[in-house]
Amino acid sequence: MLSKTSLLGAAIFFAFSAQAADTLSAQDLQAAAALRDAARTGNLSYQILESLTTEVGPRMAGGPNDARAVAWAEAKLKALGFDKVWKEPVTFPKWVRGEETAEITAPFPQPLHITSLGMSVGTPKEGVTGELVRFANLKELVDAPADKVRGKIVFIDHKMENDHDYGKVQAGRSNGASETARKGGIAVIIRSVGTDSHRFPHTGAMRYQPNLPQLPAAAMSNSDADLVARMIARGKPVTLKMTLGGRMEGTATSYNVIGEMTGSEKPDEYVLIGGHLDSWDLGTGAVDDGAGVAITMSAAEMIKRQGLKPKRSIRVIAYANEEQGLIGGRAYYEAHKNELQKIHAAAESDEGQGPILALNSFVVPAALPVVKQMQEVLAPLNVKAGDNNGNPGPDMGILKANGVASFGLTLDGHDYFDLHHTPDDTFDKIEPARINQTAAVYAVFAWMAAQSPVSFGSGTGQLVPPPRPAR
Amino acid sequence: MLSKTSLLGAAIFFAFSAQAADTLSAQDLQAAAALRDAARTGNLSYQILESLTTEVGPRMAGGPNDARAVAWAEAKLKALGFDKVWKEPVTFPKWVRGEETAEITAPFPQPLHITSLGMSVGTPKEGVTGELVRFANLKELVDAPADKVRGKIVFIDHKMENDHDYGKVQAGRSNGASETARKGGIAVIIRSVGTDSHRFPHTGAMRYQPNLPQLPAAAMSNSDADLVARMIARGKPVTLKMTLGGRMEGTATSYNVIGEMTGSEKPDEYVLIGGHLDSWDLGTGAVDDGAGVAITMSAAEMIKRQGLKPKRSIRVIAYANEEQGLIGGRAYYEAHKNELQKIHAAAESDEGQGPILALNSFVVPAALPVVKQMQEVLAPLNVKAGDNNGNPGPDMGILKANGVASFGLTLDGHDYFDLHHTPDDTFDKIEPARINQTAAVYAVFAWMAAQSPVSFGSGTGQLVPPPRPAR
Repeated sequence: MLSKTSLLGAAIFFAFSAQAADTLSAQDLQAAAALRDAARTGNLSYQILESLTTEVGPRMAGGPNDARAVAWAEAKLKALGFDKVWKEPVTFPKWVRGEETAEITAPFPQPLHITSLGMSVGTPKEGVTGELVRFANLKELVDAPADKVRGKIVFIDHKMENDHDYGKVQAGRSNGASETARKGGIAVIIRSVGTDSHRFPHTGAMRYQPNLPQLPAAAMSNSDADLVARMIARGKPVTLKMTLGGRMEGTATSYNVIGEMTGSEKPDEYVLIGGHLDSWDLGTGAVDDGAGVAITMSAAEMIKRQGLKPKRSIRVIAYANEEQGLIGGRAYYEAHKNELQKIHAAAESDEGQGPILALNSFVVPAALPVVKQMQEVLAPLNVKAGDNNGNPGPDMGILKANGVASFGLTLDGHDYFDLHHTPDDTFDKIEPARINQTAAVYAVFAWMAAQSPVSFGSGTGQLVPPPRPAR
Repeated sequence: MLSKTSLLGAAIFFAFSAQAADTLSAQDLQAAAALRDAARTGNLSYQILESLTTEVGPRMAGGPNDARAVAWAEAKLKALGFDKVWKEPVTFPKWVRGEETAEITAPFPQPLHITSLGMSVGTPKEGVTGELVRFANLKELVDAPADKVRGKIVFIDHKMENDHDYGKVQAGRSNGASETARKGGIAVIIRSVGTDSHRFPHTGAMRYQPNLPQLPAAAMSNSDADLVARMIARGKPVTLKMTLGGRMEGTATSYNVIGEMTGSEKPDEYVLIGGHLDSWDLGTGAVDDGAGVAITMSAAEMIKRQGLKPKRSIRVIAYANEEQGLIGGRAYYEAHKNELQKIHAAAESDEGQGPILALNSFVVPAALPVVKQMQEVLAPLNVKAGDNNGNPGPDMGILKANGVASFGLTLDGHDYFDLHHTPDDTFDKIEPARINQTAAVYAVFAWMAAQSPVSFGSGTGQLVPPPRPAR
């Protein structure tokens, strides 16, 4: 029996069916609405994520569980009934964490809770000890005279107020070490890039600029940053001792794991959805980004379970090594850059469990009526219409930059950066209603994209991203 | 100028002033109301706690900061203008934490976040490895046949639902190791005794029963317990490896630090308030129990600042070593047990920052009208009247048990066990409005108790606590 919502939907569809062949047929719209209503009551994404976090756990690129994660993804895609499952190699420099401790040694000795930033060098075995010099953000450090920094440990105390702050605040994480080196400092420690007030430091990648000394770089929890700021506010020199064991150890090879539901009419064109399989090592990568992998795997499976045969193929990618520099995303691009026109649409899920708040597109104008149809079918899931400059997620950003039609399914990230890159990113934080809405939206989006009677414009040269605004 | 509340209060007081001399005078009641109104807008308790957590930090009994905490308390009491400040020695067996790591080794290898329970022995250097056997609570373990446990690591998976559960759930922490030993198990690991869902293990004291092997004992975070329970639910044997470095190292001596505001009429009788100065080592002991120390120090200071001269003395005790077995409380009792009748009233604050919800007493019937007066003055702070079986807190429990008049100022503990005994017990969790209400209530209570025209019954033999209900 059709639900009231479906009947209302059906009325809309029949209105559309009078239109030209630049929109989905009434039959496809009805199928999309039925898929939506079936998918929203499913629990598969929750179950897949339970499996990944329980049976694999932390999945740092090149780390002890990387190969087990790849094996898990292959087995899961096969078990879910994908038509083809394969993997493509991704090779990268291997980083090892090692030990990480820090303490204030004067004037108020007490231990701190810290973690090394990813890719940071270690300290000498006996650690590094120095007076802290505090800056409110990276810009203050950049603007400071070198003699304020020389011989000291820089403390970048930039507090992240909400999830929209990430780009701005993580600049201190990425570049703090080199900016400290430029002024003769000896190490850097940042306030964690995170919105929580728990005693978890947040890790995350940093990088060294060429031709500058490589300094050890760590993050302390927000609670610790508050503590250290209070110490410094008393006006006496505050001394930190920090020992890090991070190091590079040759290279590692992991894999982008790919599952395909093969299309019935245009099997060589495909809708690309996915998440990244790697995580940082501190938690079990539930919201970052086991969720994205589970959401997109289940989205494709729900289409199949509903008995639908998409015209184009639907590919789910579980990307290798996003965390250390979008390396899996680049590898996929390099392997497929001569066939970008075959990537009909791209959308990665990498900001947690959802729900999805808005559907943004990045398509040619001729395809906007189809986008509008998607938005109408998704409206009952509380998905709003977005703009036409959608971002397809970190690993797929390189596809958009190279003219691939993209979709940005905006996730509710209000608590994402509470957990991001911490030990606290674990499965118990996942709420079925949230992740299952997200999976249902991905299912409807992927199905409707696959059925579109028009091209979204990939590889036509018509899709040129606007320049990013300066920060 | 008197506030409206004060005028209303004054009206009540004058009604009382017609009564006999078994209640406080109208003048004293007016002073109590003025104290309440001045104290509720103060911020001293918040400032004292900021000082303790920032300048001393973690304060494990016998640990590296114990002596610095004692020096801080002496200096702070002097700076606050107490008439006398002294310390009384407290000697106890010294426990050292050492390393603590654990991992699931099969079938799903991944690290766990654990901590040793306080007073636990360590494992051999290479750790202890064994199959986990799960029990839903201590009673299930006690009731289990020995062959289910023999050679295994016991996992007590007792989830604490709310702050009223503590006594029941912590039985597994206290006695799990010995009950495991009784059945031939090799180690015990419990779900943390805590109400949070973050990845912090909660430490806390355990003890060994005589004539049984002493087994290593640890706690895992609630997130880890969820994870391990999910692994076990899959039905295959789950193997844990755990390495603990805990050990006893001779004895240590710390001090109960005491400050007295000396009474004007009965200086040898005193109202005893306080908290415990020691904390566990993982956090900085903000809610447990820096708050209690700060609240009661500031309560006495606010009485003085208000220009009030209490008839009896008010003593603030910052107790040594509550955490490892109420050792400071016992030491105070032993040193003063021949003068219990001089302890006019006793009330310790040791369940966080408040606010205070109710005032319970444990006094002779003749003193109940004074208690009623206290409750009336405190009503504008949203303090309810309680019963006459009040508990004066852990260190003062021994005083009540020996016939000392006691007060139980019930704190709002709804989030206390989120933080209790974890790294997350830090100053940034303190809300000024909550702790300052608590300090204001302690100030009013202490002042009114000191002014009481009647004895509350300490040392008269009339105060006999009812037997505790069996759990």
